[in-house]
Amino acid sequence: MSSSSSSGQIQTPKILSTLPPIYAALHAAKTKSSLTFADLATKVGRDEWYVAAIFYGQAKPDASDVAKLSAALNLPQRYLDEAFGEDYFPHRGLGDFPPQDPVLYRLYEVLVVYGYPLKHLIHEKFGDGIMSAIDFEGHVDKVKGAQGEDRVKITLDGKFLPYRRW
Amino acid sequence: MSSSSSSGQIQTPKILSTLPPIYAALHAAKTKSSLTFADLATKVGRDEWYVAAIFYGQAKPDASDVAKLSAALNLPQRYLDEAFGEDYFPHRGLGDFPPQDPVLYRLYEVLVVYGYPLKHLIHEKFGDGIMSAIDFEGHVDKVKGAQGEDRVKITLDGKFLPYRRW
Amino acid sequence: MSSSSSSGQIQTPKILSTLPPIYAALHAAKTKSSLTFADLATKVGRDEWYVAAIFYGQAKPDASDVAKLSAALNLPQRYLDEAFGEDYFPHRGLGDFPPQDPVLYRLYEVLVVYGYPLKHLIHEKFGDGIMSAIDFEGHVDKVKGAQGEDRVKITLDGKFLPYRRW
Amino acid sequence: MSSSSSSGQIQTPKILSTLPPIYAALHAAKTKSSLTFADLATKVGRDEWYVAAIFYGQAKPDASDVAKLSAALNLPQRYLDEAFGEDYFPHRGLGDFPPQDPVLYRLYEVLVVYGYPLKHLIHEKFGDGIMSAIDFEGHVDKVKGAQGEDRVKITLDGKFLPYRRW
Amino acid sequence: MSSSSSSGQIQTPKILSTLPPIYAALHAAKTKSSLTFADLATKVGRDEWYVAAIFYGQAKPDASDVAKLSAALNLPQRYLDEAFGEDYFPHRGLGDFPPQDPVLYRLYEVLVVYGYPLKHLIHEKFGDGIMSAIDFEGHVDKVKGAQGEDRVKITLDGKFLPYRRW
Amino acid sequence: MSSSSSSGQIQTPKILSTLPPIYAALHAAKTKSSLTFADLATKVGRDEWYVAAIFYGQAKPDASDVAKLSAALNLPQRYLDEAFGEDYFPHRGLGDFPPQDPVLYRLYEVLVVYGYPLKHLIHEKFGDGIMSAIDFEGHVDKVKGAQGEDRVKITLDGKFLPYRRW
Amino acid sequence: MSSSSSSGQIQTPKILSTLPPIYAALHAAKTKSSLTFADLATKVGRDEWYVAAIFYGQAKPDASDVAKLSAALNLPQRYLDEAFGEDYFPHRGLGDFPPQDPVLYRLYEVLVVYGYPLKHLIHEKFGDGIMSAIDFEGHVDKVKGAQGEDRVKITLDGKFLPYRRW
Amino acid sequence: MSSSSSSGQIQTPKILSTLPPIYAALHAAKTKSSLTFADLATKVGRDEWYVAAIFYGQAKPDASDVAKLSAALNLPQRYLDEAFGEDYFPHRGLGDFPPQDPVLYRLYEVLVVYGYPLKHLIHEKFGDGIMSAIDFEGHVDKVKGAQGEDRVKITLDGKFLPYRRW
Amino acid sequence: MSSSSSSGQIQTPKILSTLPPIYAALHAAKTKSSLTFADLATKVGRDEWYVAAIFYGQAKPDASDVAKLSAALNLPQRYLDEAFGEDYFPHRGLGDFPPQDPVLYRLYEVLVVYGYPLKHLIHEKFGDGIMSAIDFEGHVDKVKGAQGEDRVKITLDGKFLPYRRW
Amino acid sequence: MSSSSSSGQIQTPKILSTLPPIYAALHAAKTKSSLTFADLATKVGRDEWYVAAIFYGQAKPDASDVAKLSAALNLPQRYLDEAFGEDYFPHRGLGDFPPQDPVLYRLYEVLVVYGYPLKHLIHEKFGDGIMSAIDFEGHVDKVKGAQGEDRVKITLDGKFLPYRRW
Repeated sequence: MSSSSSSGQIQTPKILSTLPPIYAALHAAKTKSSLTFADLATKVGRDEWYVAAIFYGQAKPDASDVAKLSAALNLPQRYLDEAFGEDYFPHRGLGDFPPQDPVLYRLYEVLVVYGYPLKHLIHEKFGDGIMSAIDFEGHVDKVKGAQGEDRVKITLDGKFLPYRRW
Repeated sequence: MSSSSSSGQIQTPKILSTLPPIYAALHAAKTKSSLTFADLATKVGRDEWYVAAIFYGQAKPDASDVAKLSAALNLPQRYLDEAFGEDYFPHRGLGDFPPQDPVLYRLYEVLVVYGYPLKHLIHEKFGDGIMSAIDFEGHVDKVKGAQGEDRVKITLDGKFLPYRRW
Repeated sequence: MSSSSSSGQIQTPKILSTLPPIYAALHAAKTKSSLTFADLATKVGRDEWYVAAIFYGQAKPDASDVAKLSAALNLPQRYLDEAFGEDYFPHRGLGDFPPQDPVLYRLYEVLVVYGYPLKHLIHEKFGDGIMSAIDFEGHVDKVKGAQGEDRVKITLDGKFLPYRRW
Repeated sequence: MSSSSSSGQIQTPKILSTLPPIYAALHAAKTKSSLTFADLATKVGRDEWYVAAIFYGQAKPDASDVAKLSAALNLPQRYLDEAFGEDYFPHRGLGDFPPQDPVLYRLYEVLVVYGYPLKHLIHEKFGDGIMSAIDFEGHVDKVKGAQGEDRVKITLDGKFLPYRRW
Repeated sequence: MSSSSSSGQIQTPKILSTLPPIYAALHAAKTKSSLTFADLATKVGRDEWYVAAIFYGQAKPDASDVAKLSAALNLPQRYLDEAFGEDYFPHRGLGDFPPQDPVLYRLYEVLVVYGYPLKHLIHEKFGDGIMSAIDFEGHVDKVKGAQGEDRVKITLDGKFLPYRRW
Repeated sequence: MSSSSSSGQIQTPKILSTLPPIYAALHAAKTKSSLTFADLATKVGRDEWYVAAIFYGQAKPDASDVAKLSAALNLPQRYLDEAFGEDYFPHRGLGDFPPQDPVLYRLYEVLVVYGYPLKHLIHEKFGDGIMSAIDFEGHVDKVKGAQGEDRVKITLDGKFLPYRRW
Repeated sequence: MSSSSSSGQIQTPKILSTLPPIYAALHAAKTKSSLTFADLATKVGRDEWYVAAIFYGQAKPDASDVAKLSAALNLPQRYLDEAFGEDYFPHRGLGDFPPQDPVLYRLYEVLVVYGYPLKHLIHEKFGDGIMSAIDFEGHVDKVKGAQGEDRVKITLDGKFLPYRRW
Repeated sequence: MSSSSSSGQIQTPKILSTLPPIYAALHAAKTKSSLTFADLATKVGRDEWYVAAIFYGQAKPDASDVAKLSAALNLPQRYLDEAFGEDYFPHRGLGDFPPQDPVLYRLYEVLVVYGYPLKHLIHEKFGDGIMSAIDFEGHVDKVKGAQGEDRVKITLDGKFLPYRRW
Repeated sequence: MSSSSSSGQIQTPKILSTLPPIYAALHAAKTKSSLTFADLATKVGRDEWYVAAIFYGQAKPDASDVAKLSAALNLPQRYLDEAFGEDYFPHRGLGDFPPQDPVLYRLYEVLVVYGYPLKHLIHEKFGDGIMSAIDFEGHVDKVKGAQGEDRVKITLDGKFLPYRRW
Repeated sequence: MSSSSSSGQIQTPKILSTLPPIYAALHAAKTKSSLTFADLATKVGRDEWYVAAIFYGQAKPDASDVAKLSAALNLPQRYLDEAFGEDYFPHRGLGDFPPQDPVLYRLYEVLVVYGYPLKHLIHEKFGDGIMSAIDFEGHVDKVKGAQGEDRVKITLDGKFLPYRRW
């Protein structure tokens, strides 16, 4: 029962088994490096959520991101170049819905409970259109509430796209 | 084809037909008043998203909210008191999922695409726990992007709840 | 917009519309009486959860329960006798699953997260069998936690049924 | 057909095959040790249900739990440390729903049959809010009924979380 | 609140609302007559399960059955003749599956748990084929078990149909 | 293409691949022994359906059953003891529903078509309660019909469990 | 309980309630006329299956069909003209799948069991393409089998459409 | 990249991977033999659709079929005898529904569009009963249409089974 | 059976019953006017597909569109103004998926069959991003094919949206 | 971590793992060749979408296509001949629906939002029938919009098939 050979299997989040092996390799390298996504974000020059999205196959790093990730994680650049080359494009979407995991479920619940009121508000403020999920960025912050409690503050920031009329 | 008798049916968002008639009455009164949710929010002293949630049966107004809504919308207070009395508690959750409407779908897509990276980040920043969807508030803002484009900025702000260990 | 005629529609929980009209009548009478389920439980001589189950069509009151409910709620006994007569048997099961309402969802989540460990424990303590959902009773209590916080304490108490071997 | 090599496969509950191999290792060590979850609970200083949740990947043991589990089960601490290190966070949720297994189904049925009455009771006793599934603990006891029958007594105990109004 | 006008609504099992109104009329007449399905079975000369199947739109009574039902239930024969005439053929199948009602669920569970072993046995005893659900009859009996307990004994009796080879 | 090495794969019913390998081993040993479930039932002293349930992981044999199976099938007792030891408890439920296989489907169809009438009959004969699927036994017989045709006669025999009132 | 007023409700197959009222009117007229689909087919000059498809909203009769149906069923031509006018086009598809009704299920089962072999055969005989369900006709015949038994013979006859290569 | 070793993987229809390996072996032998199902049908003395059903695990060949298949495909008889021996019974049903493949979908669509009319016709011609899918045979023919076009003619021929009345 | 009163019910496509009554009114007015969508498109100055989308509640006409529709269809402008006023925003999405209707299904099938190749092509031509369904327009044309056959030519034309990197 | 051995796994789109290995080989060869689908289309003499469909197992190349692909990709012709020989026919359909990937989802959304209007238009222009998905071709172009933006222009071009009347 050598810990070195089995470690990849053990520590890898379950969801990674549905992705190509490059992603397990990225996570293993991150664990070994003891870097957080925040650390990596600084090194790569991108938001930590965006960096995490790369680690789950949901965003495509460009050549410069790849070079910085390679350096930060001590992974051979040729290996990453090949994995994230010209031909590579994310097949986005992860896991089954509704999600069973409570962290994900609470976000889903916010949509189930507050989604229609939100839609109404967006129309009232912006007109007939949507918030883009493509020209989109998001951020996560740890803030203090009025009672000194830790609060998760998630910002979703997407371009408003008005419906084309033709 | 008298517009007065049929107007409620016509303008009411489809989803309201799955709720008790008080909600269609609220929407009709709002339309008649020409007030926006932002206007109502000012009058009631709550966030506009919260007020919209009341209009879709997803939040329970207290006696003071009811009095202010009654005044703002020119609806008999006794009628609202009865509807939102002691016995009333929201049965939360609206519509079918995944949503077909593109406004709702884009929010759902953000979760499908960026949910697992977000979960990972939350754990890295906060430890083993979740963002509460109960001790939760949210806000919607219209902001300008770097190219001057309108952007929808949604803030989700929930208390971090660490897992109890027993 | 007379509040008296529309009140039943407004205050009735949405789920009641899937049940025969006797149940909306029971709820309306309860609201009018200002009695809680705890009050009714005392008057009927049963647990409050059991009384609530009667109000949602999930338990069958016997003749004596019916007489006491009739008195407590000021509903004509003949009306209740007919509704809950010899021929009446509950068609149990309410709502769609997984539930969208967060109160119900959290109970569902407990099962999704802690169900398999619970199954293992039951077998270790009792052997090969199940907890009956028929020879079953349950109770809900409001208790104080170590930090003085309100806690919901739900007790599920069912007969252990060992698997028959034949 | 050597029993030693194949035993892990044979005795492992089916559901474990959906989890990383560390969990099958834990179960195998427990079988070898002849310790029950109750025994382990005493040694680790936690509730037996909580310990069982660790064994099914639904709870995260801290460093002290890991050290005690390592000692109790005679598993190398480094192996467990690596598996349950800083980077590890449970991806909660197990199996498909509705459950086919009768033990789990009966718990599900309690929710399907008695869930709405329970929701109503909770609101009547506590107001508008939920029982937390995060600040939550549960216990299982073997008790005797009035006819001397064995009964499964399950206690669910979660903090009441009132809805935030904003 | 006249009991006579509302009684049909109240006592009718929920599932009948998915069937044409003739079925609610049959059930109401049966309730009024105080006859059990066993009583009706004797009067009609068929098994009580078969008679019950007629009452739920799952079996087609012939002209002679109709005449006897008309007499037993004091319903105008012309009314029944028209409902169950030459043109009438059952559209079989009732309710959603898996069933939420515990009586139906237990039968479903028998199939989920013991179905594959049963299939194997049928092949071993009969060869490659099936038990017909068309040339089929069933019976329900109340019997006493070894401990004097009431037991439900259900007999399913269908013609064996061997697979045609062509 | 040696038949000995591949035979297990070929003859094993598809459903066994979802179970631990002990079950394929049992089936292979049974094929080799040329014993039917009826033969095994005689040797083990249990009903043939119960023995078949053991072979599909749906029933737990006790130590005495295991010893007799070991002898009858010429399988090492230590191997079976380990597989069906103290720690072993069935995770019941097999296959997807509705079933595609026609043998299983016909049983399912009996429930879809005749289930509600059956529920009504059970209540009329027994009152408010269910047929247990735990204190349950079943039998399969090959009988001759009135036209001399082979008929499958399945008996389901479960304890009646009245609903507890609390 | 006048049979004339209620007859439409009673005799109409359940599925018709999901279609516009013209279809119930057609069925009622057919029942009144005592004509079979075979009779109507002769009068309209089309196949009986095609005529039945018109009665279930699955085929569009042309002006000449409408005139003949009007005459055969003694329905005002203007009424039918309006219903089946220029603007009318079938929204095809009826009922939920898999079907619960055994007649429909057996046809579905033929596809579940023999569908892949059939696909293979079609390719072997015709190449890469499909049987059209649009340039399609079907027939149903009652034939005698070798043992003198009645057999249902269904012919599906669709144009072979080869895949376009571009 | 030796074609001999990988050929089985490449040419095998995807659906075969859900069946035991004997079926891939049958298909590979057929490809090697260059025989069509029509050729095999002649050699085995059965219909080509029936032979194809054997190749997809949906029909059970008898000893004589096996001998002829062995000879025609040059496969060791002992290998086939073992696979299709006394113990072997098909677990029928293939693939997910609704089918994605257009060939299968068109057959499914015929049922979705023309199924209810067909049910009505069958009852009108035969009475209350079904077409058997067990005492069933089917045939596929390539015919010429009126415009000289190739047409797929599928014949479904099943015994009519009247509902038993009991 | 006056055609005037029932005509709306009869000719209206089934799907309209899931929309507010204004849409049935639009369709009825269009039928009465004998105008095609192409005619209306000319009068409104928009594409015919866009006009059809207005008729199915999937696009929001502006004040000028409403005025022109009112004139073209001879519907009171005040009635339309109220229906499509400031407060009105489409709740987009129609019908269940996969669609049963063959016209819709074929479009769905194009996506099921050719969707992944299309995704690959889009990435190869445009990079990492999507075709917008919001800044989108579409057109339908009737064209002649090489054999003189009528062909449906559908053009989907959406802005390419590159993924934002943040 | 040699890049050569693992490259196939890493760069292959996830969906290919559900197809036979020939398709991963095609994609790997294409990556190695640096040819786009447009390049390949020129070499093979087919549309680039059609060529991409071959690469995802959705279209069958003929012998001439195979020869050209073999040359263009430097893959042994015998290997491709065997894979795409006489016996090979596509089992069409890829992935789960609704799709999670945003590129595919937007196309699906076009159908969900604009599908019914499109159906209406097709009938108005062509009569009762469908656009074939078999006698079908499609094209993708990169065009410039009025604001100079890149736009994805997708053309779907299928033969109109009128419904056969029989």
